[in-house]
Amino acid sequence: MSRPQVSVYVGQSLDGFIARPDHSLDWLETFDTTGEDHGYQPFYESCDAIVVGRATLEVVLQFTEWPWKGKRVIVCTHRPIGRRHGEETHEGPLAPLLERLGAEGVRRVYLDGGATIRGGLAEGLVDDMTITTLPILLGAGIPLFGGPVVPERWTLVSHRAFPSGLVQGTWVRDDR
Amino acid sequence: MSRPQVSVYVGQSLDGFIARPDHSLDWLETFDTTGEDHGYQPFYESCDAIVVGRATLEVVLQFTEWPWKGKRVIVCTHRPIGRRHGEETHEGPLAPLLERLGAEGVRRVYLDGGATIRGGLAEGLVDDMTITTLPILLGAGIPLFGGPVVPERWTLVSHRAFPSGLVQGTWVRDDR
Repeated sequence: MSRPQVSVYVGQSLDGFIARPDHSLDWLETFDTTGEDHGYQPFYESCDAIVVGRATLEVVLQFTEWPWKGKRVIVCTHRPIGRRHGEETHEGPLAPLLERLGAEGVRRVYLDGGATIRGGLAEGLVDDMTITTLPILLGAGIPLFGGPVVPERWTLVSHRAFPSGLVQGTWVRDDR
Repeated sequence: MSRPQVSVYVGQSLDGFIARPDHSLDWLETFDTTGEDHGYQPFYESCDAIVVGRATLEVVLQFTEWPWKGKRVIVCTHRPIGRRHGEETHEGPLAPLLERLGAEGVRRVYLDGGATIRGGLAEGLVDDMTITTLPILLGAGIPLFGGPVVPERWTLVSHRAFPSGLVQGTWVRDDR
């Protein structure tokens, strides 16, 4: 079995933050996106497993409902977690985890959370990124990028703007 | 006379850098943009003065031709400069400079360079930003953003993608 496709689907501020310094996502809700379909549902359904960091898990555990029902969730952390929803854990580089997931039949992984995404980029394991940019400058927070990345070059495969002011692009890796 | 409109027109990598760590812009040239009009010329012509940082000046002085011929150029620096092309200098916050430029009849300023743009955003003086994102991850460099910003909210007024993979948006300040 080969390594699964690794995909990022994330919202960022205009200044490249995916959450405020305390990891909060309140600013994402301040935009009226009524009637807009940003394509999340088909993306989510196409993923067999979700690989996230500890901080993202903590935020998601505050939601009224567990958003990843029925999906395999692997949390990258070196500390024990509650496993309230059957979450698995992983420690260390992503490559061995992805190899194992591939062997277990996982074909597409939804990689989420700042540190985890940056880890995937540093290991050269991210295949595509759908990034939605919101018209807000946060000034500080958890950055989407900001570390070593492989590869340098990407190919823009789609882009669109929404009436709410959100702009979305999808880039796939370009191993030229 | 009122304060001039302050505008940013800049290219960034997908990870938010406007230059490599050594300030080089070589990566900007690696994209084939033949036949594409990114709207720079009308923007440039609409500006009466250019306000840049010292580092940007040093890069521009390496170009074979001085790109700001016939324009008033103010360099934000606390060290003396060569003034090879009649550049003026300014030290300290941008607000007093902009007030003076307004009184001298300047109606639109082209604010350029990482530190200078971030300074303008921190002082809440930037009115509009045209940001062109290139499909490349640099991993390190001079960031466009990453400090305190005023205001938080902006309005997306235009957005387009080019065959080269460049994506351009223009945002104007939103003082709600």
